[in-house]
Amino acid sequence: MRVIPLGGLGEIGRNMMAVHVGDDIVVIDAGVLFPDESMPGVDFVIPDISFLERNRDRVRAILVTHGHEDHTGALPYVLPRLNVPVYSSRLTNGLISVKLREHGLLGSSDLNVVEPCSPFHVGGLEVEFFRMCHSIPDAMGVAIRTPLGVLIHTGDFKIDHTPVDGHTTDFAKLADLAEEGVVLLCSDSTYAESDGYTPSEQVVRRAIERAVADARGRIIVATFASLISRVQMVIDSAVACSRKVAVVGRSMRSNVNMALEMGYLNAPEGTVVSLREARRLPFDEVIILATGAQGEPTSALVRMSRGEHKDVRIEEGDTVIISSSPIPGNETLVARTIDDLYRRGAEVISSRNDTVHVHGHAAREELKLILNLVEPDHFVPVHGEHRHLVAHGRLAESLGMSPEDIFVLEDGEVLEIDSRGAGVVDHFEVDDVYVSGHRLWGRHASVLAERNRLSAAGVVVVALSICADTGEILAPPRVESHGFEDPLVARDMLQSASEMVHSLLENEPGEVLNLSKTKARVTACVSDHLYEATRRRPKILTLVDAIDRRTH
Amino acid sequence: MRVIPLGGLGEIGRNMMAVHVGDDIVVIDAGVLFPDESMPGVDFVIPDISFLERNRDRVRAILVTHGHEDHTGALPYVLPRLNVPVYSSRLTNGLISVKLREHGLLGSSDLNVVEPCSPFHVGGLEVEFFRMCHSIPDAMGVAIRTPLGVLIHTGDFKIDHTPVDGHTTDFAKLADLAEEGVVLLCSDSTYAESDGYTPSEQVVRRAIERAVADARGRIIVATFASLISRVQMVIDSAVACSRKVAVVGRSMRSNVNMALEMGYLNAPEGTVVSLREARRLPFDEVIILATGAQGEPTSALVRMSRGEHKDVRIEEGDTVIISSSPIPGNETLVARTIDDLYRRGAEVISSRNDTVHVHGHAAREELKLILNLVEPDHFVPVHGEHRHLVAHGRLAESLGMSPEDIFVLEDGEVLEIDSRGAGVVDHFEVDDVYVSGHRLWGRHASVLAERNRLSAAGVVVVALSICADTGEILAPPRVESHGFEDPLVARDMLQSASEMVHSLLENEPGEVLNLSKTKARVTACVSDHLYEATRRRPKILTLVDAIDRRTH
Repeated sequence: MRVIPLGGLGEIGRNMMAVHVGDDIVVIDAGVLFPDESMPGVDFVIPDISFLERNRDRVRAILVTHGHEDHTGALPYVLPRLNVPVYSSRLTNGLISVKLREHGLLGSSDLNVVEPCSPFHVGGLEVEFFRMCHSIPDAMGVAIRTPLGVLIHTGDFKIDHTPVDGHTTDFAKLADLAEEGVVLLCSDSTYAESDGYTPSEQVVRRAIERAVADARGRIIVATFASLISRVQMVIDSAVACSRKVAVVGRSMRSNVNMALEMGYLNAPEGTVVSLREARRLPFDEVIILATGAQGEPTSALVRMSRGEHKDVRIEEGDTVIISSSPIPGNETLVARTIDDLYRRGAEVISSRNDTVHVHGHAAREELKLILNLVEPDHFVPVHGEHRHLVAHGRLAESLGMSPEDIFVLEDGEVLEIDSRGAGVVDHFEVDDVYVSGHRLWGRHASVLAERNRLSAAGVVVVALSICADTGEILAPPRVESHGFEDPLVARDMLQSASEMVHSLLENEPGEVLNLSKTKARVTACVSDHLYEATRRRPKILTLVDAIDRRTH
Repeated sequence: MRVIPLGGLGEIGRNMMAVHVGDDIVVIDAGVLFPDESMPGVDFVIPDISFLERNRDRVRAILVTHGHEDHTGALPYVLPRLNVPVYSSRLTNGLISVKLREHGLLGSSDLNVVEPCSPFHVGGLEVEFFRMCHSIPDAMGVAIRTPLGVLIHTGDFKIDHTPVDGHTTDFAKLADLAEEGVVLLCSDSTYAESDGYTPSEQVVRRAIERAVADARGRIIVATFASLISRVQMVIDSAVACSRKVAVVGRSMRSNVNMALEMGYLNAPEGTVVSLREARRLPFDEVIILATGAQGEPTSALVRMSRGEHKDVRIEEGDTVIISSSPIPGNETLVARTIDDLYRRGAEVISSRNDTVHVHGHAAREELKLILNLVEPDHFVPVHGEHRHLVAHGRLAESLGMSPEDIFVLEDGEVLEIDSRGAGVVDHFEVDDVYVSGHRLWGRHASVLAERNRLSAAGVVVVALSICADTGEILAPPRVESHGFEDPLVARDMLQSASEMVHSLLENEPGEVLNLSKTKARVTACVSDHLYEATRRRPKILTLVDAIDRRTH
């Protein structure tokens, strides 16, 4: 048996793991990673599936543990390249369907709903889903029965004894699986550095209910489009305070409608209204549910905070509830949004000043409980940056597991387990695959390096027309810049750069005909000149037009 | 009396405030702001001092409250434009001297050391410094006596009853000033959202001592170069465990040497050694003190974490102590550095898993104490993002201050106080002034907007040579790109763009002679073509060479 993490180890997001037993490969999750500031112009990053493409004939299924983007978001890019069935719980399947429909892929995809504790076969393997609590209903762990014993993958989880949907983590099933004998546990490490227990979602419910009850004017709640449990709380609070809920934003609206239809959201008739209807109501009868809890620049909440939203203008007396915590890297965007909302006169309630958000991942005491309940032969901490995996590995050690049975892996490492033991036997190169617009880049981080170079000091373009026969300069070199310097200051520098290039070349027309050498000389000359003036090296692009005498 | 915040309100950093009484203007602090990811290529941002330049004749002095960069860092840029005396405490003066020497400005600057509780005159105003605890020794608050009463500016502070240097906040002086009558209090708001009290630096001392005592191999401590109190703790811990301390990094070394010479750091002879000496010692006798606690890409610690430091190679058994918290925006850089250190086998102790850092700002209970002790007629929360200022203002209200006496200002707003009352009477435009290399930009955020545009989708350059007399195209248009797409994919797109431009122009040479129109048409044509293919709009730069027939 081989286990190959393809994403989500050493980073938070784009979770994907391949399990290879005999002639069968099953994939657990296919998520996206949201880009950080080093990836300008990138919408998100997906796992490198070239290993799966090379072994296309053996890939039997993708098992999806729950409906969050970091576990489902890569499906629209993966499925066209690996046409395999997808298995997931009902709500997860609903969320995946919404996403695939947006990409025009719903008809061509083989989606299957599976109930918890209902084993099914993919290839020669028996798979069974079981309930694990997370911040979304219908989250599942996965058990795969192999000749060596059961492999358990927890998915994202926390132990919530009072979850919003009433379905607790299935300890009985975990105990049964332990009884069968667990050869390998892969367990969520995102909060392996946090002591104690993660609070129940009920803490959030109380905070949201209180905030809604206290608000005197309009209420705007921002959260993730896939945080269905939060949406339920908002609806419940609205009903309690005789308010109507209007949903703003395409993804939020699709998910809410789907969840209402499927019964994962319950709202009395007439509670959820259109924004148009909501705008006719007094402010104290309205809750607006919107995206933008991460300060995403194009989201509804951020446009409201800047006074740029076409339908909703923030006013004195509004209360904004931001029900999420900033994902690492988004802290500044979120803080700026809160400031702007305050400036427009809103009251802002966020995880900074109330418990309107708790995360969905187990803390150390919960992780210990799972480790002790499952008693695995081998342990691979999954989901988390490297230090989280290290912390989770050490936690297992502190419970008495032998260090040789604990594997802190990197994406692409191949862990082989057989009857004699376990070890890393191979390490595939896994690349970042970027989604930008509707295009994918793989193995081309050079584009990003170029963009970062451009953003550091801008670009200067030198365009040169020479005679293809004699090498004479036909016109003063044109030099223009973008993002380099204040235009007034730049003008003089670029003018003198043009003159320098002209005098560099005009006396040796023969030399100039060596075009690649000429380009290099011009680039170096301009770069040095501008560095002298600014201590910065913008990217220099030199274009030479060699004009045939017959043409002119 | 007028008070004009010029920096530090609505943001954390580049603190500066002007106090204008009669014919005298005094300036409190002159700090820098560290850039966030929206400011590529910017070293830091300084306050806009055009108001002070316009009133150069009246500016009497710059009073500096303490030696941190966000209060001193703009002096090298401000002093050449406003040659006024600087007043500060001894250590602050030492740190300012180090900085001005680096800029070759020490000789031309008028620096003055003032003792606490020693009033002095600047222009017609009496000024008095008094001790306020902060995370650096010799931090001061400022009292300015005006005809309307005393103005108190706290500077950065927390209430530490057991500070490292033994000098506690001077409550007696604050009480005396309250007795005189305080017309205006300006008080630090950075942690006005935090309940309770900020822990004493002694908490950090214990954590660092424990970490040093527990370490079996080499120890590397990363902190800010100006956090002199932390450096003292590291030296003390080294002495206790018979280790030597080697200081790595220019700024860290200059500051440590200065503080040792001035007696702000105490180390037994032979405790601080050169890195060369340290490298000859066994690992368990060494502590390396380095910069890089914020994950700054060029810092010593980050280079070590990447295996790129020329003198220090991280090894299994090393312990790295990161004694700072990430400044908002730096979280990802710090997290990445910690991961890389773990990957190299180091143990990492940071504020994530121990109390090796506490911040230096008062929490809500401390802020209340100051407000109640000083009993000001008017209150301006200073230092902090907008929501911190709002929180501090509300805190004052909760203590019974009238909302009309509390002013949550923005930078550039002019608060006027006279015997009849107070109010905002004007609002100057204050710009971001960027320091990039050795150049300043003001009023030119357009450069940054251009850079952000470039980094989102790259640049495409179209160079066109036409006959100046007939408008004929003299050569196939050259189209090149940078940071746009994977080069192989881009090649075909750029080739077809070139052909499209050619066919767009070749049939109407007369039209082509309208150069600005031609540029606009070419740009639009290429932009639409590339958008069609990629759903992205790179910046298009079109350069047209109109070549005179006589020339060729």
